[in-house]
Amino acid sequence: MARARNAQVETTRARILSTAERLFAEQGVAAVSNRQICEAADQGNNFAVGYHFGGKNELLLAILEHHNTHIEPLRRQMLDALGPVVEIRDWITCLVQPQTDYFESLGTPTYFARFCAHVTTDPKFQVMLYQQATVSEALMSVLAGLYGSLPALPDEVLACRDSMARNMILHTLADFERSLADADPSAGNAAHSWSDIRDILVDALVGVWLAPVSAR
Amino acid sequence: MARARNAQVETTRARILSTAERLFAEQGVAAVSNRQICEAADQGNNFAVGYHFGGKNELLLAILEHHNTHIEPLRRQMLDALGPVVEIRDWITCLVQPQTDYFESLGTPTYFARFCAHVTTDPKFQVMLYQQATVSEALMSVLAGLYGSLPALPDEVLACRDSMARNMILHTLADFERSLADADPSAGNAAHSWSDIRDILVDALVGVWLAPVSAR
Repeated sequence: MARARNAQVETTRARILSTAERLFAEQGVAAVSNRQICEAADQGNNFAVGYHFGGKNELLLAILEHHNTHIEPLRRQMLDALGPVVEIRDWITCLVQPQTDYFESLGTPTYFARFCAHVTTDPKFQVMLYQQATVSEALMSVLAGLYGSLPALPDEVLACRDSMARNMILHTLADFERSLADADPSAGNAAHSWSDIRDILVDALVGVWLAPVSAR
Repeated sequence: MARARNAQVETTRARILSTAERLFAEQGVAAVSNRQICEAADQGNNFAVGYHFGGKNELLLAILEHHNTHIEPLRRQMLDALGPVVEIRDWITCLVQPQTDYFESLGTPTYFARFCAHVTTDPKFQVMLYQQATVSEALMSVLAGLYGSLPALPDEVLACRDSMARNMILHTLADFERSLADADPSAGNAAHSWSDIRDILVDALVGVWLAPVSAR
């Protein structure tokens, strides 16, 4: 009896989670209310989000944790497979590929890339995304390796390239996810697979990090 | 009498425009209703947006046009000042500097950079931003020059770098505008001026466009 009830609670939680992720991805985090999520998830009770998660912050965090639980082991595997000589491109690949491999494994449509892009556009929620990142040990190792392999850069250039690189990853994955979901026929010259987008993104990130700094 | 009335209409329009821009910049386009804009702009009549602009789309367009009217001549000037040999860095500078010079001239706080970032995150409104760009002759000349100076790139790489470059400009300017507005004391290693951010952004964009394409 208790077990049946737990299973039902889990099903409800999972349904709220995936519904919320889709709505946030399509409309933005601020634009979607807990009530809309409950309605779209077929919850008669408009307080279901509050009951199961607490509030919007906790709901966002649960969505992030759900996916990171799957991405983290992929990143750990890639890290463990690195040879003795690791170049900047390898670190960047360890940053990008666990995500693109994960999206590839989910099939179409996914919503998590657009969800992350929306979360990060909103300063209130951005902090949460970056805090969540710090609990990912493999991610922290990759970033340490990446920073260690960079040429010397002035502090403000380093800080700014870091945030440009994050934005590139977030928005490029989000744009590609959207183009897959929309199956936009006008996008004839677009990348075709998550591995295409991985290669294009890694090349561009190497370009950003290694770009000469102009004299000022 | 008619002139006084026209002046008053212009004042009301301008107030609605600047209020809407600030709210959109701070909260996102989808999260802000016409009613909230009217209230924040001290309009007793909740239909003032409708009356003066038509709807949200027309309001967004009016905000874009207002700023582009100022940015376009700056870009035209830079274009006219180009020497006979124009390199990729020059074209990219013509893309970025008219915007950073304009923001510099406005003083702090500005909202337009964050406004543009929000507009472009929403596919519904993104189209509008890019359509507005096509009526800017100077901008179109700069883009033609830039594309003409690029190394040969596969179609899907070109398309993807193009959208990465746009996102870099939009989000880097928006992030910097926010850091200025918040005067974030923790951002000790951040860029200090619009001309700093211009240089950092131009270097990184050159890096993206000239990055070697890895064999696939």
